[in-house]
Amino acid sequence: MPELRKDPITGRWVIISTDRAKRPTDFVRESVQIKGKGFCPFCYGNEAKTPPEILAYGRNGGPRDSSGWTVRVVPNKFPALGIEGDLDREGEGLFDRMNGVGAHEVIVETPDHQSTLATMSEKALEEVLWAYRDRILDLKNDKRFRYILIFKNHGEAAGASLEHTHSQLIALPIVPKRVREEVDSGKHYYQEKERCIFCDIIRQEVESEVRVITENTQFIALAPYAPRFPFEIWLLPKQHGSAFENNPSPVFTSLARVLKDCLMRLDAVLDHPAYNYMLHTSPIGEESNEHFHWHIEIMPKLTKVAGFEWGTGFYICPTPPEESARFLREAQVGVEKT
Amino acid sequence: MPELRKDPITGRWVIISTDRAKRPTDFVRESVQIKGKGFCPFCYGNEAKTPPEILAYGRNGGPRDSSGWTVRVVPNKFPALGIEGDLDREGEGLFDRMNGVGAHEVIVETPDHQSTLATMSEKALEEVLWAYRDRILDLKNDKRFRYILIFKNHGEAAGASLEHTHSQLIALPIVPKRVREEVDSGKHYYQEKERCIFCDIIRQEVESEVRVITENTQFIALAPYAPRFPFEIWLLPKQHGSAFENNPSPVFTSLARVLKDCLMRLDAVLDHPAYNYMLHTSPIGEESNEHFHWHIEIMPKLTKVAGFEWGTGFYICPTPPEESARFLREAQVGVEKT
Repeated sequence: MPELRKDPITGRWVIISTDRAKRPTDFVRESVQIKGKGFCPFCYGNEAKTPPEILAYGRNGGPRDSSGWTVRVVPNKFPALGIEGDLDREGEGLFDRMNGVGAHEVIVETPDHQSTLATMSEKALEEVLWAYRDRILDLKNDKRFRYILIFKNHGEAAGASLEHTHSQLIALPIVPKRVREEVDSGKHYYQEKERCIFCDIIRQEVESEVRVITENTQFIALAPYAPRFPFEIWLLPKQHGSAFENNPSPVFTSLARVLKDCLMRLDAVLDHPAYNYMLHTSPIGEESNEHFHWHIEIMPKLTKVAGFEWGTGFYICPTPPEESARFLREAQVGVEKT
Repeated sequence: MPELRKDPITGRWVIISTDRAKRPTDFVRESVQIKGKGFCPFCYGNEAKTPPEILAYGRNGGPRDSSGWTVRVVPNKFPALGIEGDLDREGEGLFDRMNGVGAHEVIVETPDHQSTLATMSEKALEEVLWAYRDRILDLKNDKRFRYILIFKNHGEAAGASLEHTHSQLIALPIVPKRVREEVDSGKHYYQEKERCIFCDIIRQEVESEVRVITENTQFIALAPYAPRFPFEIWLLPKQHGSAFENNPSPVFTSLARVLKDCLMRLDAVLDHPAYNYMLHTSPIGEESNEHFHWHIEIMPKLTKVAGFEWGTGFYICPTPPEESARFLREAQVGVEKT
């Protein structure tokens, strides 16, 4: 008999197939393979082909938009939102609109076209996290913005249009609905219990163990109780914190380690799947609170979302998270746990 | 400058690209083509290959599970939910679950493997709508269910695993989040204004005309103001009604005509795209009310949903609905308007 499970944070119900649970090898998919053919605007020597850079690490004094960098941030050449202009809000009868003011940036994670976050060094991955942090802190000075989302599309099936590994950042003049729901739900729980719901979930998961994938002193990686997708992973700091960008340096070192660990496990168990991840940090102006707990959600792209999901906002997950967690936990990936 | 627009019903914001708006021919996609190769469990002669039928029209006295039918409803061979057993609700610390009791049925829309809803006759399409109605009314007698969703995945890109045209029905022991949001939002609006928000939208759209695709005496087809997807269509009855299944007979005749019209327009403008549609009717036990207005949402599958959408619950639509509506309105499809 399948099971219906409710995510305690969003209130979203999902259907978990427990009878004919799908194993990793049951998913028909294409491995993400780096072909490295053709022109790449993110490789050394092609810096002039992107809009002028916003940030670069590692160049040690070389000129802007030259090679020698380790991580490079540039405006998206085809931005979803425009950075210029004031925010105009306007009604049109029943409808509300505003002009599309925002930032849309690309974080080129490494100059090496062949690397991925799973194969690069922990040190290099940590630099990517620092770039996330630096860009968030900088954009928070712009009073037009209410939220800054970092996300990554890895592989064509996950929506990546360039194969050279990169993340994206979008700064928005509103707090998006999904983040608002998480924050409001956390607030509601806190008002009732005076505890963070995420901290409570971590406590319960550590005790039951069945959905824990990996952990180190500062982070835990879980298969969520009511996942939308098979092999979905949530990465949470063990110690309560609302804002990713306000963490001290050792947290980024530790996060780099556990993020690389998780991505290596996905590669090992699912043969280099396409995936998306997104970083949920507290909205601008609400950075310091007891009710929201920043985290990263990683979703391998193994199934198709179809009419049922669009019609209901609720998902059918063919692999119970206890099974996903076991496969990912038992994967041999040789990462030290510190 | 792109535009941010808010859907007045769900509160969902979307980004509309107004600068480099995509025209129909800009979407890289595969046309849905019916190959008709290999064994098909939905064709005449193969009735024994599906679970025993629940309903069939048109057979005029022939034995069950034989050929001669015009529309046939069978249980899904690989159901997401199980029909047997009582509903058990259970807590597990912070988490909530219940056993996956529900119905999962397939409506085989025609015996003709080569037909689609866009190519079959209006009369045949009307029979499909009657099958939707009859199955909803029957399943509402089951006290375990709270919601019945009808949806359709057309084409592999939209999640269809069999090419013979069919719809699906899922009966659920809970009201799904997306439907709950629409109903609650409608209720809230009604409490404030004593008017249905959907009726107000129809009134405003008829007046402004720019997003109207087609209409007849009983129905209107709109490109919604804040669409999630390019060429998204909402089909609404002009006269207020909460429950699809409680309509009198002429409504189904009229709906068949306008639904076929819309699907022919999509085929003409987008070269036979894959699409999903879903029918939103009022939840069980709330059939008769002033605040919810039943409707069908049609979403052609032209773009990929990626990290940004998953992370925010908010969408980037590269074609303004005014443009989509114009292309669809001007398509020559030769449907009479009555």
